[in-house]
Formats: sequence, C-alpha cells, structure tokens
Amino acid sequence: MSPKGDPPISVIKRLPVYLRVLDNLVKRDIEVVSSKTLSKETGFTAEQIRKDLAFFGAFGTRGTGYTTNYLREIILRIIGLDKQTNVAIIGAGHLGTAFARYNVRENPYTNVVGLFDVSPDIVGDEVEGVPIYHLNELEDVIKHERVQVGVITVPAVHAQEIVNRLVEENVNAILNFAPATLNAPENVRIHNVDLTIELQSLIYFARDQIDEGETD
Amino acid sequence: MSPKGDPPISVIKRLPVYLRVLDNLVKRDIEVVSSKTLSKETGFTAEQIRKDLAFFGAFGTRGTGYTTNYLREIILRIIGLDKQTNVAIIGAGHLGTAFARYNVRENPYTNVVGLFDVSPDIVGDEVEGVPIYHLNELEDVIKHERVQVGVITVPAVHAQEIVNRLVEENVNAILNFAPATLNAPENVRIHNVDLTIELQSLIYFARDQIDEGETD
Repeated sequence: MSPKGDPPISVIKRLPVYLRVLDNLVKRDIEVVSSKTLSKETGFTAEQIRKDLAFFGAFGTRGTGYTTNYLREIILRIIGLDKQTNVAIIGAGHLGTAFARYNVRENPYTNVVGLFDVSPDIVGDEVEGVPIYHLNELEDVIKHERVQVGVITVPAVHAQEIVNRLVEENVNAILNFAPATLNAPENVRIHNVDLTIELQSLIYFARDQIDEGETD
Repeated sequence: MSPKGDPPISVIKRLPVYLRVLDNLVKRDIEVVSSKTLSKETGFTAEQIRKDLAFFGAFGTRGTGYTTNYLREIILRIIGLDKQTNVAIIGAGHLGTAFARYNVRENPYTNVVGLFDVSPDIVGDEVEGVPIYHLNELEDVIKHERVQVGVITVPAVHAQEIVNRLVEENVNAILNFAPATLNAPENVRIHNVDLTIELQSLIYFARDQIDEGETD
C-alpha cells in the first residue's frame, strides 16, 4: 500500500470516522457498503470519501461498493491500529480520568496502561482497572509496558517537563491537553487539543447568530 | 473593523492563543510587545502573526510593536468575548464536569451557567458553584439564563436529540464531544471535538517513529 504523496491532515482525521462507521456496519453484519451509505453515516460527501480512500489504493468495486470488513481492516492498517498501541496518561485529574474511562470503554484499538499523578490521595487507585502510578514511576512504566503514546493532562506549567521526560524515553507521539506552547525535537509529533480554543473559536463563528438572537 | 475577506479557520483558532499570551503579558505589566516576542510565546512565526492580525486591521507600530492591552481588547472584540457569553453543558459525567471546572477556573471570558443530566445521584449538586439541573429543565434554564452556547458531553446515541432541543431554543453555537454525526440547520455552528479521532490520527503520524523505536 503506497500512498500517492502524503495525504493532508484533513484526510487523516476522517479515517477514524470511517473506521467508527465500518465498525458499526460490521457489528450489524452488513457485508458490503456503498460510498452513498458511507456518506449518509459519516456526513461527508460520497465524492470526498472516494477521493480520501483513493489516496491509499483502490478498494471498492464500481457499482457495488466496498467490502465492509476488508475496508475496515485496510483503514486499521493505514492508521496503524492493526498493532497494539500502549498509551500513558500523565495527570489523573478530571480530564485525565475522563479520557482514560472513555478509551477503556469505547476505544478498542488503544490500550491505556497507566495514569500518573503526584497526589497521594489518588496514587495507588485504579480507573476502570487502569492503575494510577506516582509520576516518579513514569520512566520505569514506559520501559516495562512499552508505552508509545503519551497523553498530557497536567497543568500548563508542568507540561514541558513531562514532554522532556517522554521524549527522553523515546515516546514520540504526544496528545497534549495543557494550554501551553511546547517544544520538542522535530521527530516528535505533538497534537494539541485546547478546549478553550475550541470554545472561543466557536464563539467567533457564532457571534453573528448570537447578536441576531439578541435583537429578537 | 472590517475583515479583508473571511479569515480561514486556522487564523481564527490562533486568536485565542494570542489572547492567552496577551493576558499573561498584561498581568506582568508589559505594555508593549513585538511580534518577535509574540512569536516566542506562541510558537508561531512573527510573519504568521503579522499576517493573521492584518486580516482585521493595522494595530502595530513598525519598529515598536503592539500596545499589549490595546491588542488584547481588539482580539477580545474580534472573537466576540467583549460581551458575556453564557454556556450550558449537557451531560454532567466525567468529561462534562472536567470541562465545567476548567472553564470556571481558567477561562474568564465565558460563563458556565449550568450542567444538565438525568442521573438522580448528581442532579441538584454543584460543580465549582455551577448547579447540575435535571435535563427536563433545559429549555427553562436556556430562556432564563440567556444561554448562547451549548456543550454536548452526553453519550453519542442521545446527542442528536440534544442538538434538536438546543436549536429549538435558538442556541446556534454547539461544541460537541459526542462521537456522532449530527445534523442541524445551516445557521447552526457545530464544532466537533472527538478525542478518539485526535488519538487515532496521532497514531497515524507517529507510526513511523513507533516502528523505528521498536527495532531499537
């Protein structure tokens, strides 16, 4: 499978949506799916879906559609979810534990191996069966559990220090929820999820409607 | 202030980052800031910052930079945070309460007026002083508290019903955390934050490094 050039991030971010829809179709024993049905279930146009998938090869049959389970396995392989991915969550506050619970319950493709915190009130507890370790144990657990992805939910002021420790242990994929600008070597991929930015940029786009609503 | 055409969403999503940095500079009594310093604090290039701000007008002085508090107020006005925005969070589970706590503590520009849930165990409680109402009270509270933004953290299967109820009450700005494809009229702005998509797309980009790491 050789991608035709690097697909843009917008394509990559649609792959997990296709995967979720295909997972549901497989559960419902639906063996073949048209791009029209995929369009209805994902909210993307059929043309968009065909274009996205064409980045990675030719998987459909004209007039019939895609073999559901085959396409599901292809997408798992493209994303890299065909192999187990071990995840550590640093920060076991409300957001960290919410993220852990959600992934243990709803995301079968990644494996949360531990949460890390410094609060003596919660170190030693479990969240959905996942242990909360002391932050001092981070390096040992990363080595022992072969952690590949770090999720940062600590306060902004501590985030850079956590990035440094993860990078030092060759954890090169980081999902960061801390509202901080983080530095890392070029080979490290950091995705930032900033809930304040999401909310504030929504307010920008909504302001026109909000103003109209107020004059009613 | 008349934008030169519609700025792309990438520009809009950088505005809250500028705001956060400017907030910190104002707190530290720094009255003037160069685009070079803004670059260092935000992680964006100085050229990018000048281009972004030029969408909305000319605010800097060549050779000197920007008056910190003035630029902060301009950005508040551009985003629409110069007026109070009232927010309701539907779903008072782990993610909903984490989001409420975070916004009450860290985000001075929006006002969380209520959480909504159906669980008798938590209805009537408070989170950081914000009441948890029964979902039956949604419409009344939206009217009474003039809610302008809805945040959805309910299970995917209930998300569309909540969207419908918000839209019916003229709440046209929705931040959705439920992993579901939602339908709404064109004048309604929905921002989706899908934590599974963030994690899985990170794994796509990190897979090369992960594979290299494994052969060490």
